[in-house]
Amino acid sequence: MNEVRFKIQPLKHSAKSAISTRIAQKTKPLGALGKLEALAQQLAEVLTVDAKQPILLQQPVLTVFAGDHGIATEGVSIAPSEVTGQMVANFANGGAAINVFCRQLGWQLQVVDCGILQPPAAHLAVISQRLGSSTAAFHNAPAMSEAQLQQGLSFGAESISAALQAGSNVFAFGEMGIGNTSSAAAIFSALSGLPASETVGKGTGVSAEVMAKKCQLITQALELHRAALTSPWAILRHLGGFEICQMVGAMLAVAQAGKVVLVDGFIATAAAMLAVAAYPACKEYLVFAHCSGEQGHQKMLDYLQVEALLNLQLRLGEGTGAALALPLLQCAAAFYNDMASFATAAVTEVNH
Amino acid sequence: MNEVRFKIQPLKHSAKSAISTRIAQKTKPLGALGKLEALAQQLAEVLTVDAKQPILLQQPVLTVFAGDHGIATEGVSIAPSEVTGQMVANFANGGAAINVFCRQLGWQLQVVDCGILQPPAAHLAVISQRLGSSTAAFHNAPAMSEAQLQQGLSFGAESISAALQAGSNVFAFGEMGIGNTSSAAAIFSALSGLPASETVGKGTGVSAEVMAKKCQLITQALELHRAALTSPWAILRHLGGFEICQMVGAMLAVAQAGKVVLVDGFIATAAAMLAVAAYPACKEYLVFAHCSGEQGHQKMLDYLQVEALLNLQLRLGEGTGAALALPLLQCAAAFYNDMASFATAAVTEVNH
Repeated sequence: MNEVRFKIQPLKHSAKSAISTRIAQKTKPLGALGKLEALAQQLAEVLTVDAKQPILLQQPVLTVFAGDHGIATEGVSIAPSEVTGQMVANFANGGAAINVFCRQLGWQLQVVDCGILQPPAAHLAVISQRLGSSTAAFHNAPAMSEAQLQQGLSFGAESISAALQAGSNVFAFGEMGIGNTSSAAAIFSALSGLPASETVGKGTGVSAEVMAKKCQLITQALELHRAALTSPWAILRHLGGFEICQMVGAMLAVAQAGKVVLVDGFIATAAAMLAVAAYPACKEYLVFAHCSGEQGHQKMLDYLQVEALLNLQLRLGEGTGAALALPLLQCAAAFYNDMASFATAAVTEVNH
Repeated sequence: MNEVRFKIQPLKHSAKSAISTRIAQKTKPLGALGKLEALAQQLAEVLTVDAKQPILLQQPVLTVFAGDHGIATEGVSIAPSEVTGQMVANFANGGAAINVFCRQLGWQLQVVDCGILQPPAAHLAVISQRLGSSTAAFHNAPAMSEAQLQQGLSFGAESISAALQAGSNVFAFGEMGIGNTSSAAAIFSALSGLPASETVGKGTGVSAEVMAKKCQLITQALELHRAALTSPWAILRHLGGFEICQMVGAMLAVAQAGKVVLVDGFIATAAAMLAVAAYPACKEYLVFAHCSGEQGHQKMLDYLQVEALLNLQLRLGEGTGAALALPLLQCAAAFYNDMASFATAAVTEVNH
C-alpha cells in the first residue's frame, strides 16, 4: 500500500491585521474577552477570506473512533477490553455522555469501529473501518503493521469526507478503547523524550499499583522499539491504537480541507501531536478544547505550546471535552460577527 | 423605610445520597465528568424533589444592572462615567457582548438603570429602578443612604419577580458601571480584612500609576468608614454601587425562591459575598460561572471556598462569564437526566 500523504497549506492570512482590527473595534476594553478573542482571530483566519466576512460555523460533526488494545490484557485499566464494545453499543443506542452532549449542543455524531474485539451487532449504526480485532500488545511487538497504519490513516480521512462535502467546517474527534491511555502516554514519551513516569496517568482511575505496572510496561515498550521510533509514523505504528491512527488521519484531512478541528483530551492530543509532528502546518487548524484531569495532558499542551479553553477536570474521553467547547466557538464567532463597534454604537473609545 | 428581609431555606435535601447514586450509576468511570458531576448534584438538590425527577432548566434570565459611581470622577477607570450610559444604550440596542451571548445561548436579557448619570432615552427598553444619578464618592462619604440601600435591595428583588412567577429557575446578573471595580475591591477588603493592595486590580485595563491611585483611594475609604463597617449592609451602604446593591437583592430573592443563581465575575462575586455574609444559607443556590482576569477574583473565590466553572481570562463584566456557563449547566442536567446507567446499557460496571 502506498504511503498516505496530505497537503496542508500554512495559514498565512492576508487579512490577519484587518481581522485583529475588527476585534479591537468592538465595544469592550481591548482584550476583555480573553481567550475568546484569540479564538475569534483563529476561526476568522481559518474560515473567512477577508475581515468583512462573518465566521459561519456549519454542521459540526463529532466522530468517535473505537479500537481495542493488546496491552489491555495486562490489566492496565480498571475495565476489561469487552467494555470497549459495550460502550460502542451504548454510543449507537444514544446512552453515553457523548450522545447526551451532542444532542444538547447540536453536534452530529458518528461512531467508527476501527478494530474492536467483537464487531458490533449489525443493527447498530456504527461505521465499520476495522483494522483488526485489536492491536498487538505494544510492549512485546509493534502495535500494528505498516499496511494497517496506512489503511488507518486513509480510513480516518474517509470518515469525514462526506461531511466535508456537505459543508461541515468544524470537526471533533473522540475515542473509546480500553488501554488507550497507555498508547497515548507511550506516544507522548516517544515524541517528547519524557520518561513514562512523567506521561503515564491514572486513566479511568487505576490504583497506584496498577499505575506503576502501566509505567513499567510503557518503559519496556519504549526500550524495545527505541531504534525504530524514528518518525511520527513509526511511533504511531509501534505504539499504536487503531483509533488513534484513524484520528490522526481524520485530523490531517480536516486541516487539508482548511477547516477547524476541536481537539479533545489526552488521547486526542496524542493524535494531534503526531499530526503536528508529521505536518507542522496543521497546528493552526487545531483548537484545543480542554485540559483533562489525566496528569500528562497539561504537559502535552505545554509541549505543543497551546492553551486549552476549558478545564473541567474531565477524564472521560469520547470527545466529551471537545463537545462541550462548541458553544465557546459559537460565541466567539457571534461576537466577531454581530457585536457593535465603538463607532456604530456611539460609545467613547477608551482603548489607547 | 423598613429593612428588607429575606427567608432562605438551608439546602438540606432528603434525597442527597440518592442523587449521588444516580450520578454514580451513569456509564462512565466514577468522577470522570469532573466539575459537571458536582454541578449536576447541586442543580438536582436545588431544583428537584427526589432523585427520580429530571433537572429542568427553564427560561434562563440574565439581568444587567447599571449604576454610576462618584469615585469615577477621580479617574480610577480608563473610561469616563458617560460610558456607563452609552453602554446601557448599547445593551438596549442589542450591540454589546452580553447581547450577542444571550442571543446565541438562549438567555432572556433585561437591562436595569439602577442610577446612572443621565436616564436612558425614553424609547430604549431599560427598566428604571433609579436610586439617584450616581453614588457619592465613597472615599469621602458613604456611597448611599440607608433609604437608598433598602430601596435598592427591594428593587433588586422586584426585578426578577415577574420571571420567577413565569417559571424561570436559572438567573444570572451582570453589571455596567464605570468605577465599579473600585467598589467591589473595597467591599472585598472590608469583608475579608485584606488590604486594598491585595484586592484592587486593573479593571478595564488601567496603568500601574492609576492602579496605585485607585489603591490609595480605597485605603482612604476603608480608613474613613472603618468604625461603621460592622455588617454586610453597612459595608454595602458605605462602599456602594447602586448596581451592586440591587444585584445583592436579586441574588437573595432567587435563593429565597429556591432557584439557581449563576454568579459572574469580580463585581458579581462581591455582591455574592455580601449576600452570603448576610444570609449564609444562600451560598448553596449559587453556581460560580467563571474566574475572571481581574486579579482579586480568584482570591474572592478562595475566600468563599468555591470553584468556578470557566477560566477564559474574561474581564468585561456585563454578565458575560455567567452567560457563557449556561451550556455547562444544560449539559450537566442533560447527562443527569438522559445518560444510560450501567444496568440499562449492559455495560460492565467498573467502579469499585
